[in-house]
Amino acid sequence: MKIRPLGDRILVLREEEESKTPGGIIIPDSAKEKPHHGKIVAVGPGKIGEDGRRTAMDVKVGDRILFSKYAGTEFKIDGVEHLFMREDDIMGVME
Amino acid sequence: MKIRPLGDRILVLREEEESKTPGGIIIPDSAKEKPHHGKIVAVGPGKIGEDGRRTAMDVKVGDRILFSKYAGTEFKIDGVEHLFMREDDIMGVME
Amino acid sequence: MKIRPLGDRILVLREEEESKTPGGIIIPDSAKEKPHHGKIVAVGPGKIGEDGRRTAMDVKVGDRILFSKYAGTEFKIDGVEHLFMREDDIMGVME
Amino acid sequence: MKIRPLGDRILVLREEEESKTPGGIIIPDSAKEKPHHGKIVAVGPGKIGEDGRRTAMDVKVGDRILFSKYAGTEFKIDGVEHLFMREDDIMGVME
Amino acid sequence: MKIRPLGDRILVLREEEESKTPGGIIIPDSAKEKPHHGKIVAVGPGKIGEDGRRTAMDVKVGDRILFSKYAGTEFKIDGVEHLFMREDDIMGVME
Amino acid sequence: MKIRPLGDRILVLREEEESKTPGGIIIPDSAKEKPHHGKIVAVGPGKIGEDGRRTAMDVKVGDRILFSKYAGTEFKIDGVEHLFMREDDIMGVME
Amino acid sequence: MKIRPLGDRILVLREEEESKTPGGIIIPDSAKEKPHHGKIVAVGPGKIGEDGRRTAMDVKVGDRILFSKYAGTEFKIDGVEHLFMREDDIMGVME
Repeated sequence: MKIRPLGDRILVLREEEESKTPGGIIIPDSAKEKPHHGKIVAVGPGKIGEDGRRTAMDVKVGDRILFSKYAGTEFKIDGVEHLFMREDDIMGVME
Repeated sequence: MKIRPLGDRILVLREEEESKTPGGIIIPDSAKEKPHHGKIVAVGPGKIGEDGRRTAMDVKVGDRILFSKYAGTEFKIDGVEHLFMREDDIMGVME
Repeated sequence: MKIRPLGDRILVLREEEESKTPGGIIIPDSAKEKPHHGKIVAVGPGKIGEDGRRTAMDVKVGDRILFSKYAGTEFKIDGVEHLFMREDDIMGVME
Repeated sequence: MKIRPLGDRILVLREEEESKTPGGIIIPDSAKEKPHHGKIVAVGPGKIGEDGRRTAMDVKVGDRILFSKYAGTEFKIDGVEHLFMREDDIMGVME
Repeated sequence: MKIRPLGDRILVLREEEESKTPGGIIIPDSAKEKPHHGKIVAVGPGKIGEDGRRTAMDVKVGDRILFSKYAGTEFKIDGVEHLFMREDDIMGVME
Repeated sequence: MKIRPLGDRILVLREEEESKTPGGIIIPDSAKEKPHHGKIVAVGPGKIGEDGRRTAMDVKVGDRILFSKYAGTEFKIDGVEHLFMREDDIMGVME
Repeated sequence: MKIRPLGDRILVLREEEESKTPGGIIIPDSAKEKPHHGKIVAVGPGKIGEDGRRTAMDVKVGDRILFSKYAGTEFKIDGVEHLFMREDDIMGVME
């Protein structure tokens, strides 16, 4: 099933917490809100501003992103957990 | 009875939770806010911005959409449960 | 007594909950916020935006509308209960 | 003493609840927020928007208005109770 | 000591509650928020809007104003109690 | 160590409560929020508005200002307590 | 691993509390919210305003900044703790 996110929303395939991956390890600390990460599988067309113009998205399908663990709405597509979130909930892209 | 939604509102015919449908299964997980889904039966003309222009809607009648379970206002039309919601409450369109 | 609503307000004559009317039945469900309905008896001139322009109203006198049960301010005119509400509190028009 | 309201404020002389006046009776119901009414005795010059323009007021001295019972700030002028409120707190004008 | 208020702030010399002054008596009622009054001793240059323009103030030094009793920040200058408040906290000017 | 405040922030060297200084005494009262005062030691370049323009600051290094006691974030520079605050937290300048 | 922050976000390498460093000592006080400091390791492209223009960032990679201890979202990159925050959470740059 293909999903088209609306506005500035993206669809993310959440990745497991990597705690021992060599090269590019992301080990969350326990003290504060921690980012989770995942891969973007679908990107909305962007938000329409007060002036009617649509703002282009800064991310694309395939980008691996970091986001707050409180961001997004979970649901499963074909048995795999995904997250909808707004682009503004993304903190950064892993390159 | 025909309903004309106002502004950026849509009218949705909620679909039952499909938990075993083959092809395009949406099985909600229990941990977080989960999206529900339904079919759009009526679409408002769009919201009017500060500059007086109306922003076109990104969805149309017949679209099958995903939305937060907290979105919308329920009511029955001719005995069938429907939901009013704003376009911004829609997370994505199933294609 | 005639009432002229200000800005984007309308004056509504609330209708009784129709629970058995044939053709166009609206039976509220008990789970969520439910819309009420009524007939518009007066319409304000529209809201004035930041740029000084007045936005035209999308409803007119005589329209039968659906609205949240929490919308509006009640009062009686000549012994009949009415509601003041803003156009944005209207979910849709019954046609 | 003459009072000049600032911005979009008005000064209102509150009227007693008329519960038996013939012709134009306003009998408040007990279930919800109820409007009160009064006569406008002074009107501000209007609010200045982000663009520096002043928006004209939709009411004038002498108008009899309906407003929420929670609207306004009470004070007495020469022994008579008055209310300051913003134009947006007015629901409608009685004609 | 001279004080220059910033933006849309004013400096007010609070006046005692006049409860028996003949001509222009302001006797606060006990039911609601009540306005206090005072004389403006300093006026800021006005607020700068999103477009970089400064909006002129509607009050001037010497104006006797009415304001909510919750408005403002108290402090003493040369032993006399004053209040800083924003122009929007002023309800009206006594003339 | 030199600090460059960002946006519309300023850096303030807080002054002790002067309660007996002759000429320009500021004795805080106990009833309400009271302003504190201090000397500006660094000024940011100003805030950038929605239209991309930077709004000039109304204060400069050396100004002695009044501010709410709840304003600002404390920290010590070279052993002396300072405060970061936004220009909008300043109530006035002592002249 | 390289991280590209989105919008007006930056990535900061937090520095230990310096409590005895000679020259440029920052000793946090205990009474209020205290700023922390760190070095910027990555800077987003800036926020896009309502008019579609991107506002340039006021900080650059290598800047040593002060920020509220409540600002930011922690995570570790290659075993070292970092913080994501918005430019507006930065109070100042140490020079």
